Amino acid sequence: MGPDQRSSPTAINPGSQSALRELNEERILAMLRSHGTLTQAALARSTGLSTATISNIVKSLVATQRVETAPTTSSGRRAMGVSIIDAADVAVGIDFGRSHVRVVLARAGFHLLGEDHTALPVGHRAEESISIAASMLKKLCANLGVDHTQLLGAGIGIPGPIDHRTMTVIRGAILPEWVGINIESQLQAALSLPVFIDNDANLGALAQVTWGEHQESSNLCFLKIGSGIGAGLVLNGSLYYGSLGITGEIGHSTIFNQGLICRCGNRGCLETVASTGVIIDLLSQSEGTPIGIEAVIERAQSGDSATLRILGDVGAAVGHALANVSNLLSPEVIVIGGPLAPLGELLLEPIRRGLFRHAIPIIGENTVVRMAALGDRAEALGASALVLRQGQPRQI
Amino acid sequence: MGPDQRSSPTAINPGSQSALRELNEERILAMLRSHGTLTQAALARSTGLSTATISNIVKSLVATQRVETAPTTSSGRRAMGVSIIDAADVAVGIDFGRSHVRVVLARAGFHLLGEDHTALPVGHRAEESISIAASMLKKLCANLGVDHTQLLGAGIGIPGPIDHRTMTVIRGAILPEWVGINIESQLQAALSLPVFIDNDANLGALAQVTWGEHQESSNLCFLKIGSGIGAGLVLNGSLYYGSLGITGEIGHSTIFNQGLICRCGNRGCLETVASTGVIIDLLSQSEGTPIGIEAVIERAQSGDSATLRILGDVGAAVGHALANVSNLLSPEVIVIGGPLAPLGELLLEPIRRGLFRHAIPIIGENTVVRMAALGDRAEALGASALVLRQGQPRQI
Repeated sequence: MGPDQRSSPTAINPGSQSALRELNEERILAMLRSHGTLTQAALARSTGLSTATISNIVKSLVATQRVETAPTTSSGRRAMGVSIIDAADVAVGIDFGRSHVRVVLARAGFHLLGEDHTALPVGHRAEESISIAASMLKKLCANLGVDHTQLLGAGIGIPGPIDHRTMTVIRGAILPEWVGINIESQLQAALSLPVFIDNDANLGALAQVTWGEHQESSNLCFLKIGSGIGAGLVLNGSLYYGSLGITGEIGHSTIFNQGLICRCGNRGCLETVASTGVIIDLLSQSEGTPIGIEAVIERAQSGDSATLRILGDVGAAVGHALANVSNLLSPEVIVIGGPLAPLGELLLEPIRRGLFRHAIPIIGENTVVRMAALGDRAEALGASALVLRQGQPRQI
Repeated sequence: MGPDQRSSPTAINPGSQSALRELNEERILAMLRSHGTLTQAALARSTGLSTATISNIVKSLVATQRVETAPTTSSGRRAMGVSIIDAADVAVGIDFGRSHVRVVLARAGFHLLGEDHTALPVGHRAEESISIAASMLKKLCANLGVDHTQLLGAGIGIPGPIDHRTMTVIRGAILPEWVGINIESQLQAALSLPVFIDNDANLGALAQVTWGEHQESSNLCFLKIGSGIGAGLVLNGSLYYGSLGITGEIGHSTIFNQGLICRCGNRGCLETVASTGVIIDLLSQSEGTPIGIEAVIERAQSGDSATLRILGDVGAAVGHALANVSNLLSPEVIVIGGPLAPLGELLLEPIRRGLFRHAIPIIGENTVVRMAALGDRAEALGASALVLRQGQPRQI
């Protein structure tokens, strides 16, 4: 029996009805605080309250300016999304990349307050990017009128697998400058905030189920294709860390037994055939001049046959690796992120074909593959979600 | 602060100390009821009580015959295991195989009361094995003096992936006779008990963390190599079902792109190079006469080079597939079960080599691979654990 059903007129006096209503309001606000925008249907499912009760309470919360509603899409369908308005508490999300730092500020309930982005040279020192992030945060707070006391903490994204036994980036990572550094103490000192650290692929996955379109997925795989290839897994509604914290290393699935040597020490890994570096190298060679990832996307969109052939091969290899993931984990949805996301169907189509070729039929037919919609911001937004999502953060 | 620390003499009167002690006893009994045999160290970790408190309470529970202790091994080390004695409640575990039915009766706290086993011809009808299981259960109860009212329910193992949307065995399974049958209603009617249905690989995994040696693993992969190859996953301490209930389909990882056609419709799947059927076919061909799995094990143990070469190739392929699993999920331990388990190191050694070859180094070095110790009983014991383990069963 849902608590709302107890409010029958004969059983309970008006005093306890209002107490019950407050309790139900609190449950709805708590769900919105930890999950971001939710549809009324999702709120009903997750709280056990009836849709009539939900609709009633949401109306009164809108009137008292504690939540707001806006049109959204839920698994591709139009719906009305409900989000919390909770002015005081602010979460920081920082995404450290190979050649950038991005800082976002977000209010509880997943409202983006502001963001900043700085380009950095590849190979910059970790300490340098930490100090840049700290001054970006200071400036952002000043511009937005956010006081340091309002900050709940900072979620931090690092583009490399983190060994949870030592909380350091492991050797062989795409960002050698961060290997072996005590990230936690340096960041806490620089930011004067509690920090929550995770790798970029995990944060991309978390962003999909909080800021993204997949709030209702319990089992989601986010595959980031960049200079490295790695996945973040949401399983049974939570980020999955396994025994070492090093998970989702799909980039090192062997695709060609006699393939090229990979930076991990093995050969024929997915990364040696499908990373952005490989795509750029192949196309630059035939051009005789180095080209950027934007040019790859333009050429594909204008129908250049060499580019499309390479993307076909990349998709086949990625689909093969994702078939193994799907056969093993049966996720509802796989989301592809990273700089190739603007390619849309041009890359999704060969990925789906590869997945379908290598997965058992019932899994191939039922696994949805989508491009990430959050763009470059996914990791920083996911980092702020680490802070906003109660119970989810792993404070170190 | 653990509750035991509150029992400081100045803060609490004797009355509430004894209430606190009862509460702590109940917590320990609840842990043992749902997890089977645990060491005192594991009890301390999982309840948050101090080892001194645990040791005290266990002593008094032994004196009052509510628990018993016996030497055990914990991750290979000698330790003292604590198990509950809880006479009244009995769980049934039934394992339906291609050519057998096995029934076990177990008391709460994972004490095996008795078991029975019947061989059946391959291709027998599902209805036939259900009615045989029902009479085996009746006879077993009569022999052991267990009344039907003591039975909590029956866990059921089916050797095939079960689609959780319909709770039927999917097409293409190793046991075509069960495809499309409404297993639940037939079993409930035949047994007059609540039934909890799962596939054999999931039950093998559950058996390892309840009846087996791996009670302290939160992330475990159980790989069953038989006429089919499938895995069960324990992730974050619970059996993992994904979105469809069809998980662990490692047997259909593509190992050879241009390999043999598999019963799933794809080609070069792990099953086409490493199932027991393939091993038997290869060796029978060179012999000119069909040999059984026992003969394969004998030949390997006596050092026959053709047999060892085939097991080397099987291990390499299995290790390759398990490297993908480990890179993705970072399990603490992988347990190999099925009829090849008696091969021990003869099969483990090539599997480990294959895993090490294809996994990233830190994962290869830290993933433990073991043979299952529960023998043919693993699935039936796991089925009874579905019933015994509070919160774990998925009643349909």
